[in-house]
Amino acid sequence: MQFHLDGFQPGDPDIADPVARIGKPGSPGTLPQTTDVLIVGSGPAGLTLAAQLAAFADIKTCIVEQKSDRLLRGQADGVACRTVEMFQAFGFAERVVREAYWVNETTFWKPAAGGPIDGIMRSGRIQDTEDGLSEFPHVILNQARIHDFYLDVMRNSPARIEPHYSRKLAGLNVDRTTTHPVTVTLERTDPGHEGEIETIRARYVVGCDGARSATRKAIGRTLEGDSANQAWGVMDILAVTDFPDIRFKCVIQSPNGGSVVLIPREGGYMVRVYVEMDKLDSRERVADRKLTVDDVIAAAQKVFAPYTLDVKDVAWWSVYEIGQRMCERFDDDATTPHVFIAGDACHTHSPKAGQGMNVSMQDAFNLGWKLAAVLHGRSDADLLRSYSSERHAIAKMLIDFDREWASLLHEASKPGSTIDPAEVQRYFVQHGRYTAGTATRYAPSVLTGASTHQHLATGFEIGTRFHSAPVVRLGDAKPIELGHVVCADGRFRVMIFAGTETKLDAVCTELTSVVKRFTPKAADIDSVIDVRAILQAGHRTLDITSMPPLLFPTKGKFGLRDYEKAFCPDLKNGRDIFDLRGIDRLRGALVVVRPDQYVGHVLPVTAIDELSAYFAGVLRVA
Amino acid sequence: MQFHLDGFQPGDPDIADPVARIGKPGSPGTLPQTTDVLIVGSGPAGLTLAAQLAAFADIKTCIVEQKSDRLLRGQADGVACRTVEMFQAFGFAERVVREAYWVNETTFWKPAAGGPIDGIMRSGRIQDTEDGLSEFPHVILNQARIHDFYLDVMRNSPARIEPHYSRKLAGLNVDRTTTHPVTVTLERTDPGHEGEIETIRARYVVGCDGARSATRKAIGRTLEGDSANQAWGVMDILAVTDFPDIRFKCVIQSPNGGSVVLIPREGGYMVRVYVEMDKLDSRERVADRKLTVDDVIAAAQKVFAPYTLDVKDVAWWSVYEIGQRMCERFDDDATTPHVFIAGDACHTHSPKAGQGMNVSMQDAFNLGWKLAAVLHGRSDADLLRSYSSERHAIAKMLIDFDREWASLLHEASKPGSTIDPAEVQRYFVQHGRYTAGTATRYAPSVLTGASTHQHLATGFEIGTRFHSAPVVRLGDAKPIELGHVVCADGRFRVMIFAGTETKLDAVCTELTSVVKRFTPKAADIDSVIDVRAILQAGHRTLDITSMPPLLFPTKGKFGLRDYEKAFCPDLKNGRDIFDLRGIDRLRGALVVVRPDQYVGHVLPVTAIDELSAYFAGVLRVA
Repeated sequence: MQFHLDGFQPGDPDIADPVARIGKPGSPGTLPQTTDVLIVGSGPAGLTLAAQLAAFADIKTCIVEQKSDRLLRGQADGVACRTVEMFQAFGFAERVVREAYWVNETTFWKPAAGGPIDGIMRSGRIQDTEDGLSEFPHVILNQARIHDFYLDVMRNSPARIEPHYSRKLAGLNVDRTTTHPVTVTLERTDPGHEGEIETIRARYVVGCDGARSATRKAIGRTLEGDSANQAWGVMDILAVTDFPDIRFKCVIQSPNGGSVVLIPREGGYMVRVYVEMDKLDSRERVADRKLTVDDVIAAAQKVFAPYTLDVKDVAWWSVYEIGQRMCERFDDDATTPHVFIAGDACHTHSPKAGQGMNVSMQDAFNLGWKLAAVLHGRSDADLLRSYSSERHAIAKMLIDFDREWASLLHEASKPGSTIDPAEVQRYFVQHGRYTAGTATRYAPSVLTGASTHQHLATGFEIGTRFHSAPVVRLGDAKPIELGHVVCADGRFRVMIFAGTETKLDAVCTELTSVVKRFTPKAADIDSVIDVRAILQAGHRTLDITSMPPLLFPTKGKFGLRDYEKAFCPDLKNGRDIFDLRGIDRLRGALVVVRPDQYVGHVLPVTAIDELSAYFAGVLRVA
Repeated sequence: MQFHLDGFQPGDPDIADPVARIGKPGSPGTLPQTTDVLIVGSGPAGLTLAAQLAAFADIKTCIVEQKSDRLLRGQADGVACRTVEMFQAFGFAERVVREAYWVNETTFWKPAAGGPIDGIMRSGRIQDTEDGLSEFPHVILNQARIHDFYLDVMRNSPARIEPHYSRKLAGLNVDRTTTHPVTVTLERTDPGHEGEIETIRARYVVGCDGARSATRKAIGRTLEGDSANQAWGVMDILAVTDFPDIRFKCVIQSPNGGSVVLIPREGGYMVRVYVEMDKLDSRERVADRKLTVDDVIAAAQKVFAPYTLDVKDVAWWSVYEIGQRMCERFDDDATTPHVFIAGDACHTHSPKAGQGMNVSMQDAFNLGWKLAAVLHGRSDADLLRSYSSERHAIAKMLIDFDREWASLLHEASKPGSTIDPAEVQRYFVQHGRYTAGTATRYAPSVLTGASTHQHLATGFEIGTRFHSAPVVRLGDAKPIELGHVVCADGRFRVMIFAGTETKLDAVCTELTSVVKRFTPKAADIDSVIDVRAILQAGHRTLDITSMPPLLFPTKGKFGLRDYEKAFCPDLKNGRDIFDLRGIDRLRGALVVVRPDQYVGHVLPVTAIDELSAYFAGVLRVA
């Protein structure tokens, strides 16, 4: 898809009319008096959470936003492979992959041999993402479009949620003795309603309101961390250049000092340029410098020299300081949390490591199913404590990576730096899994089993995201990605990898009793825990009607059979999931997948008691 | 995606609310007095044509439909690989592929060995589509959803077209002496407007109004052909069954006589069943038999026996006679046609060969760009004569295939038939390219070059659809399908496959002069003929800035560079397009691709005069 040729136009590029493509406004009218979950902020974290909760018709969710309308341009754009995997669970991965720029290769540029006067030369070129790391590419797409896709999911889901815009958080108070412990006051800022105060009482409040989070302040948490005292400029531009790698992600170190990170953008013409600007004095804020877009362009041109960069149109620009900072906790209380903060509200990243938006959305994906499980009465409220502990550890790891990467880039780009450009490239390659978002590994907890039986499925590492692999569906011979059966529907999955000595009927009989323990009597057998099996034989040698009832269940009001529970390896293309993911062929394995796509446990197929104990730690007996 | 579990719900399955998922109504208000193109009928042919013409803001298109609203259920469902390729050009292939059932394998069932009492047994199982035939699968999706995707394209396109419903063709008159030669009267049938007559004058009228086409009658054409005097039943059902292949396409011959063609449907639960019903007397119509859905179910159950078929919900059903019939011409006049007919209006197929909807859409794709070229003044009106000649030959070929296949199925399923079931399977495999829609080959004409130089690119057969293959885009190393650069935008493409002895700069200089000959001075160089090059070297060894200007052009109001004209083979994955498509590595080749994705010509890279002559036969000098 090519678009933006004659200037940036916000909205859906499939829509020709510039007004129609901007889409629908938010929800009109006043707020409800009570809600189950109040989400403050409609950025990536808030919208991921709202999209998740919208899947449940019986959960009341309200999302408010300080701005007067949805985002149309600028801000984040990097979408890690791991994030596209999550989008798959929300049903819009195809839309992102179709519209986005794909980061296929990254090139590195260094000062040319002859010194400053010779400008820059390419020092290296690497494949961006290692082979097999994800079934999806690393892509770049305006954050505004990600918002749009989430807004569509919210609008189309059972709970039908639209943001209420022009609402500013004015107060937040927690009284744990009532059914709706959090009382929030909001001030309207829309024309005709300026200054009107609304009060809403919520069971839970989630502050997704960015680095200056009013929710964070209301619960007395603060962002802590260093400031690098370095100003950066960022701009989305349409430009004419003779720089050959303008459609590649590039890290450019200039001989004059200064550096650029270049990120090509969707549509074939636009690029984002991050450029190092002034060193700030301690305690000085970037705003004090009163930098203009012309300053940013001039700084970029200096780095690109002797290549030209003739900027024709600026879609968006900004200047900012790097500040990797985070809160001590991501909730209001260690024992019975009712207020949570997510995304930039509790951890801020430098944009260049491409972490901010991705980590924020993963925060919300982690929290969403837990809130739903507690509100549905399927889990005790204790479960909510795991949000801060799990996500705090991940944020810390990524901020450390981010700080190291930013500092290496900065040092390497100082005039006369002795850091070998090859070193920058080596670091980038080594840390590819951070950038891809697949480095997240939750520590052992009630949600993350011990590694006792990890050897049964070495490729599904406990605590990491379920790493999809190709399979063939037994019922209709369709080649699919196994990971794509994990939808954002709040359900746990158990994948039975059948070993040659596995007695599948017996295992399924035992599993059925475990599953029934946590499933309401009237509900379909897969409504809380969805069991799937992966067999070793080719799909043509097996018959779906010979599967045990757990793998060929009757469902719904008509008692129709579900034909999508059993899978076989993709033998024709030589991509056997048992080999790809290191499954013990003799003994097989049970792999528990959490509703947020992370591997909760790996167990022997006969370890029914341990499996039951795992679920008893998370779910209530129905 | 799984849906329809608790009963069929029409509309977009991503939308939870059953009212919201049905979507928007048509265009309100009265018709314009004049239009460039009037399309009668909003079935697959009419909507394909409207979607194509909607791409051009300066062409006025009006589409009318006799029904009171858009289709919501039933009718066709088979979508050939070739058709998905066309959907890719319209931008919605991903939506179809995501939502549809994929036909991966087809199974064949025959009378069990012991005679009638033993029922049926599986006699064979084959891969549905041969490897490498298309980058897309053969899929099944309700025609109504295909309509929805086209309606979205029409709504979002520059010309913003919505159908006018409740309009019945009342009269059609051609007067070739005026600018708008066709005067059409339409009768409104919507409440409050019943019987109101509207008159619209059009430059061209296209009747896409089905087997009982009023447009066809108005121009005095008739459908000719045999009737097989055989009634068939068809139904879309939710059912419980112990038949193991219910999620496979099946051809079932029963020992009691009778046969079923089973087509699984989107959503994981619904299936379509075609079942042979009564033999009709000559001159008897199927309606005379007053068959009910219970008759259809009973007939199907008889074929499935001893397997059960417990029908829980019927989404749609119908009975019909097979009638392969067609018109002598698909327009009103051999010299200066102004009225055309497309789809079922000029050729009818039996549903089981899966041709009807696919061929109809290809009719419209063939005609759409030609109408646009003539209306834009880029081509002489003569071009429009090629519509009937090209599509008549294809329809005839497919009807012959259809008749043979239907007759074979019928004969094989007679009690005591001596036709070996393996023979049915063999025929099916042999004719896979008909079913896939890739067997279409236009005969030599002004649009289809002679095969003199076919040996330079044996895999791009002149007159057949451009068979996509993987390449890597030079400008950003993106792996793409080369065929996907062909969008439904009315442009011709020239693919330069550079041989080792090709002088690319010189070839591009010559080509530039050819392209300019047919391109308005003020327009971008690729606006009429879009030239692309495929080089033999790996993409890391080449630099986009070294490409000749034709392959690295400046475009649009800012003079931005287009980085998407040059490609390299996918060497990493060992899928070299030069090998896959039999390109002469030494001499290379020029491959001309028509706006409807068909190969117009294959020429030596130096055959500039022949290339110019080809275009001069189709396009006017600008």
